[in-house]
Amino acid sequence: MASGRILVAQGGGPTAVINQSLAGVVLEARRFGHIERVYGARHGVRGIVDEDLVDLSQETRHHLEGVAATPSSALGSTRDKPDLAYCQEIFKVLRAHEIDHFFYIGGNDSSDTVRIVSEQAALAAYPLRCMHIPKTIDNDLVGNDHTPGFPSAARFVAQAFAGANLDNASLPGIYVGVVMGRHAGFLTAAAALGRKFADDGPHLVYLPERTFVLEHFLADVKAVYDRLGRCVVAVSEGIHDASGAPIATLLAKEVERDAHGNVQLSGTGALADLLCDEIKDKLKIKRVRGDTFGYLQRSFLGCVSDVDQREAREVGEKAVQYAVAGAQSGSVAIRRVGDYAVDYLLQPLEAVAGKTRVMEDEFITASGNDVTEAFRLYLRPLLGTGLPDAYRLRHNPVAKVLGTGSRG
Amino acid sequence: MASGRILVAQGGGPTAVINQSLAGVVLEARRFGHIERVYGARHGVRGIVDEDLVDLSQETRHHLEGVAATPSSALGSTRDKPDLAYCQEIFKVLRAHEIDHFFYIGGNDSSDTVRIVSEQAALAAYPLRCMHIPKTIDNDLVGNDHTPGFPSAARFVAQAFAGANLDNASLPGIYVGVVMGRHAGFLTAAAALGRKFADDGPHLVYLPERTFVLEHFLADVKAVYDRLGRCVVAVSEGIHDASGAPIATLLAKEVERDAHGNVQLSGTGALADLLCDEIKDKLKIKRVRGDTFGYLQRSFLGCVSDVDQREAREVGEKAVQYAVAGAQSGSVAIRRVGDYAVDYLLQPLEAVAGKTRVMEDEFITASGNDVTEAFRLYLRPLLGTGLPDAYRLRHNPVAKVLGTGSRG
Repeated sequence: MASGRILVAQGGGPTAVINQSLAGVVLEARRFGHIERVYGARHGVRGIVDEDLVDLSQETRHHLEGVAATPSSALGSTRDKPDLAYCQEIFKVLRAHEIDHFFYIGGNDSSDTVRIVSEQAALAAYPLRCMHIPKTIDNDLVGNDHTPGFPSAARFVAQAFAGANLDNASLPGIYVGVVMGRHAGFLTAAAALGRKFADDGPHLVYLPERTFVLEHFLADVKAVYDRLGRCVVAVSEGIHDASGAPIATLLAKEVERDAHGNVQLSGTGALADLLCDEIKDKLKIKRVRGDTFGYLQRSFLGCVSDVDQREAREVGEKAVQYAVAGAQSGSVAIRRVGDYAVDYLLQPLEAVAGKTRVMEDEFITASGNDVTEAFRLYLRPLLGTGLPDAYRLRHNPVAKVLGTGSRG
Repeated sequence: MASGRILVAQGGGPTAVINQSLAGVVLEARRFGHIERVYGARHGVRGIVDEDLVDLSQETRHHLEGVAATPSSALGSTRDKPDLAYCQEIFKVLRAHEIDHFFYIGGNDSSDTVRIVSEQAALAAYPLRCMHIPKTIDNDLVGNDHTPGFPSAARFVAQAFAGANLDNASLPGIYVGVVMGRHAGFLTAAAALGRKFADDGPHLVYLPERTFVLEHFLADVKAVYDRLGRCVVAVSEGIHDASGAPIATLLAKEVERDAHGNVQLSGTGALADLLCDEIKDKLKIKRVRGDTFGYLQRSFLGCVSDVDQREAREVGEKAVQYAVAGAQSGSVAIRRVGDYAVDYLLQPLEAVAGKTRVMEDEFITASGNDVTEAFRLYLRPLLGTGLPDAYRLRHNPVAKVLGTGSRG
């Protein structure tokens, strides 16, 4: 019955390691003699309905390894979310090309797409193995210890804040760095892993899991500034007021939404600028700088966790094993089984699709503006090996000869 | 006559390798038996007048190597620009501590500070060797092939655009990345080194060496978008209209100036947002994203050029050789003597101080929106070894079975 044709696609936002999963699928499939072809759809489900397919069977192993080590989605991605009619088009193409295994590498929204496609296939009595392969820098998939893509983005954020902290220590003032993460604060929280010394920033971390109150934020910043003469702040793009309205949209002229109904939060510096203006206006502090990490944090070429690379490869391999050898459909998940070691399991698509994990309470301090040691222990092994270290001069003061400087 | 006391300080914006120069000074000074002490001033000239000095002689070689590999100014920096009264305070402190060698690691403004201090020392008949050690990510010091700090920042920018290009290819649209560089476009131009394939971005590069005309910009973006369905743009924060007014300030509510009279261009996302709004409004393109690289490009922990590290170390060493062994004052400069090799020379302080190098015409295309092959040849060796590579899948299309997709 099985044709031995696989179709793989990539959906949602790119990551530094999503091509590892692609390579995992293609290379693992080669181990199975009856798999005659591995096709890739360009730009996710959009490429399926457009019959915009490429034959990955013609790729060399060596070249695939090069692609695997390259960030962003090599097949291209899409923000399309298939409805019933869209799915009927997908089936038409899958049937026409005699595809019997569909692998979709993506996050929340992509897993929901796989669920819908799988249900439509069942309704149409079409024999299709549907596998969702996890990927998201937001780390917001339920049933996973963490998701491929998050560790590398977290490493970027940690290294970025380690550097921003050094910069801020050199030229003191306020620094606000805005990090991606609509509903889940994991990536913003990763900023805390950039700390080494007790007085290192980020000194404050604001997450979408807690209500953002501007007055509290300003008081927090003032307290740190009064104590250290400087303050480094990590802020999630998804912070919101008590009503759930994103702070970012309080400023935006017009709100842009994608096909999933998500408000566009990235690709604009508005939130950082708003917060900096408030600090300047209300706290009368002069040197206030804001950066929005934007797309660099998910696609920077040259900042990747080797642990993330390995696991992203494995979820692709496991997907093929579950689907081709095991004749199952589902979503591959990562489970932590040691400090540090992982194993993989297959979840039902319904268990993952459309659900959002947020940071567990144990990861957030009672004050709501920092992360706990438990979070640091959770994240540290994911960042991988070879993290750059930061050294500071030891303080050996020279005795004053003149006394307090006249300009001091 | 010589007391054998050195004072070293760091001024202006931090870089990824400014501590290499600091280590170069301290470690090279140890070779000279009559140098009894190497002091560091905290936060540049501000630390001198405040007598906020540390004794670097007490640092171990091993620890100094760790500091050397850490980005940002380990001694702290300042934006202060000494006037006559300020310099008299500096002399008072230098004299009180019997300093006879003053090393200041910095850019344009810092070299001018060294010149003023040197002139004041001469007027006061105070025996002081004054050395300016070059540092700036802007690469805008005259008389230098390039300046330490620029190659590492350029590497960050090139890697960032290589990744942003991959991201943009995956989810097509317009991407605008704003890069530091007030008067000189070198760092923005480095974005072009992120290209590998002919259709890779950045497709357009806007530099402060050319007048920015919004209508031309929009026409350029439209032309690329019509051709490729996407467009990646590198823009200098310093772009200006025909009157010289920065495009960034056309938006800002209030303009912040530092002690040197420089308008604050960094630490705000306003320019990227302005340009993105114009593209959305005028070209009616929906997916338009802007990032402002901000402080990441000069302080990111973990992106550095090994060539830059080596040269930053050497300018520190050479400064000590010129001053201590040669009893000279001046500004250390880098000269290219091979492809690729450098040598160092000493310039008079007046030749460097307060002057600004901008990109040579041969580095900018006639169209004014890209760089030439000459620039790529100039920059490539500076980026160092081990640059990450980017691979894309080869295009092996699968023949359509159904014909053009009904939703295509």
